[in-house]
Amino acid sequence: MLGQWPDKAIERLSLYRRLLANLAAERVKFIYSHELAQKAGRTAAQVRRDMMILGFSGSPTKGYEVARLIEAIGGFLDAGGLQEIALVGVGNLGRAILSYFAGRRPNLSITAAFDSDPAKVDRVIHGCPCHRMEELASLVAVKSINTAIVAVPAGEAQAVADALVGAGVCGLLNFAPVRLRVPGAVFVENVDLTTSLEKVAFFARRQLLRQE
Amino acid sequence: MLGQWPDKAIERLSLYRRLLANLAAERVKFIYSHELAQKAGRTAAQVRRDMMILGFSGSPTKGYEVARLIEAIGGFLDAGGLQEIALVGVGNLGRAILSYFAGRRPNLSITAAFDSDPAKVDRVIHGCPCHRMEELASLVAVKSINTAIVAVPAGEAQAVADALVGAGVCGLLNFAPVRLRVPGAVFVENVDLTTSLEKVAFFARRQLLRQE
Repeated sequence: MLGQWPDKAIERLSLYRRLLANLAAERVKFIYSHELAQKAGRTAAQVRRDMMILGFSGSPTKGYEVARLIEAIGGFLDAGGLQEIALVGVGNLGRAILSYFAGRRPNLSITAAFDSDPAKVDRVIHGCPCHRMEELASLVAVKSINTAIVAVPAGEAQAVADALVGAGVCGLLNFAPVRLRVPGAVFVENVDLTTSLEKVAFFARRQLLRQE
Repeated sequence: MLGQWPDKAIERLSLYRRLLANLAAERVKFIYSHELAQKAGRTAAQVRRDMMILGFSGSPTKGYEVARLIEAIGGFLDAGGLQEIALVGVGNLGRAILSYFAGRRPNLSITAAFDSDPAKVDRVIHGCPCHRMEELASLVAVKSINTAIVAVPAGEAQAVADALVGAGVCGLLNFAPVRLRVPGAVFVENVDLTTSLEKVAFFARRQLLRQE
């Protein structure tokens, strides 16, 4: 099934859902594909193709029904029940991640954090219990966790990824600035906040030089 | 100058620098292109092409000198002095960003935050003073800020981007789940943490279904 859904289509569905949730909050009931496309920075044809993935169709005269489309995307993207997520590394970044995701998605929740620092374990941080690294393999297995966030320093990231994959995890959101080596069946998404900011700052500076 | 440096080359240089900083911390003095390539998940040919952007060359027998290469990348990527950055939106995510970047880069620093909530302004949050939105245009101009981080809810992001661009900002790191409409000369990097996590969770779940 993994190859069947393109990575970018999943990103777009996630984005549509949040745009639609904003519309629902503004009591908008219907939206045309070209309107949703404009908000998402896509073409109307792209939006209509993505709706076909869902098997969802709109009315030619009124467009897509916002509430039903949110439900359809949820039915496709979300687990039936709660999907628990592990976080490894409760430093500055790990805490920021816990704080950001706390309560954000009803059925996607970080329920186990791990750190090698004894001062951080056996505590609850932003609502999430923090455990010793030695407990990682058994807790991930007991909780049937398949998704984990890696927020340790670069030098530790590969060992952490190996331990997670060994314990049954097959999706990693990696914040460490290294490319992880994992088996082909494991999905890795890299987020590198420092590089993103350095890049924007670099181009902004160059752009300014150009204008002077 | 903007078109001259490919986006992805800047990302790679930023990544190399952090990999090299780790090596320097481990007292490694020299590294071959193929070794750096392996750590960065690239080919040795790619690393050598990127070094040509810098005008940097290694020794055929010893490879690149780590300390000098870190300096060369810094000379290319960094501003000569401090480059100040503005952050708009000091909610849950904005605070996490302030906390994450505080002190991380000596010459790249978030020095002005803005929020529309009166309870947040005229305070110092994670070392950064938080101002009223009405002060944005004048402070960005006075401080010659060219780079800003957008961490407001989706519905406010376009208005915030317009205000920042109007005040002279030409690089935006956007965390709001919308595509910003900006003039062609403005560089926008989108980071969407919720979508990234939803995507990893989706593929991990699919992968697990496949194995069962």
